[in-house]
Amino acid sequence: MPATMYSLSIPVFRKYLSNLSVILDKAAAYAEERKIDPAALLDARLYPDMLTFTRQVQLASDFAKGAASRLAGDAPPKFDDVEVGFAQLKERIARTIALLDSARPERIDGSEERQIELKGPTRTLTFSGLEFLTQFSLPNFFFHVTTAYAILRHNGLPIGKDNFLGRI
Amino acid sequence: MPATMYSLSIPVFRKYLSNLSVILDKAAAYAEERKIDPAALLDARLYPDMLTFTRQVQLASDFAKGAASRLAGDAPPKFDDVEVGFAQLKERIARTIALLDSARPERIDGSEERQIELKGPTRTLTFSGLEFLTQFSLPNFFFHVTTAYAILRHNGLPIGKDNFLGRI
Repeated sequence: MPATMYSLSIPVFRKYLSNLSVILDKAAAYAEERKIDPAALLDARLYPDMLTFTRQVQLASDFAKGAASRLAGDAPPKFDDVEVGFAQLKERIARTIALLDSARPERIDGSEERQIELKGPTRTLTFSGLEFLTQFSLPNFFFHVTTAYAILRHNGLPIGKDNFLGRI
Repeated sequence: MPATMYSLSIPVFRKYLSNLSVILDKAAAYAEERKIDPAALLDARLYPDMLTFTRQVQLASDFAKGAASRLAGDAPPKFDDVEVGFAQLKERIARTIALLDSARPERIDGSEERQIELKGPTRTLTFSGLEFLTQFSLPNFFFHVTTAYAILRHNGLPIGKDNFLGRI
């Protein structure tokens, strides 16, 4: 398979979201087994002004769907940030993966030079499609997946790098 | 710039290593200002069986140079894991960036189907070049950069996502 905008994005997001979904199962089982209030994990942060575990998962979803949609020239669907509990977070990941599965390679390939504008509260970021994917979407996606993992590890969940990487 | 194996790897590693180098400066200044023993940050972990901050930086370097070398068909140079202190870690990042700077696009482009073998202690992993970059090298690289960032945040360093992302 050649290096294309599709091959660099959709399969990567899908794999790492699938791995995160398995980690959510492990976290739910760990909470039950150790009589830990699930909220103690779901609301955990690595520092008081960092985001919670739940928000890290939501943002991993957002960066994946944002890339899949914007590279195809579409506005990303809005997913409300209302998930409570591991099951609902898994459902959000499943919805995100369904969106990735529906992405058509022919609409994403060739988007290297597509102009992508992200309007933020204080400024608008403008990227080429290639910069958007490689310098913004993938780094942000992995930032949030890794931080979600780190929050669970910090709270004692016995997982390792193999769970982050999945089957390789 | 088209999506090529070079454009997806070398500029990404370079940018995020440069950002990490700036974060190291901030950590060193923070330790000095707050009279924190630098070792308290350098040896910090998010959990007793996780790796230290110093190891996270060394591994970010390793995954970047591993990708740059292996995609070109070369064995990666060995960097001994001997760094003590922020200055030496910055020097290691600088050496890694110098290696990235010397990477020749024409040797990396077209490596999608190159067979990459990684011999581990218990098994040998075999990838195509494209899988190796997108499913292994970049995820591992961002895993260690993010965990380094998370360790410093957890220890109170006042940085934010902008420092992770750098100038965008």
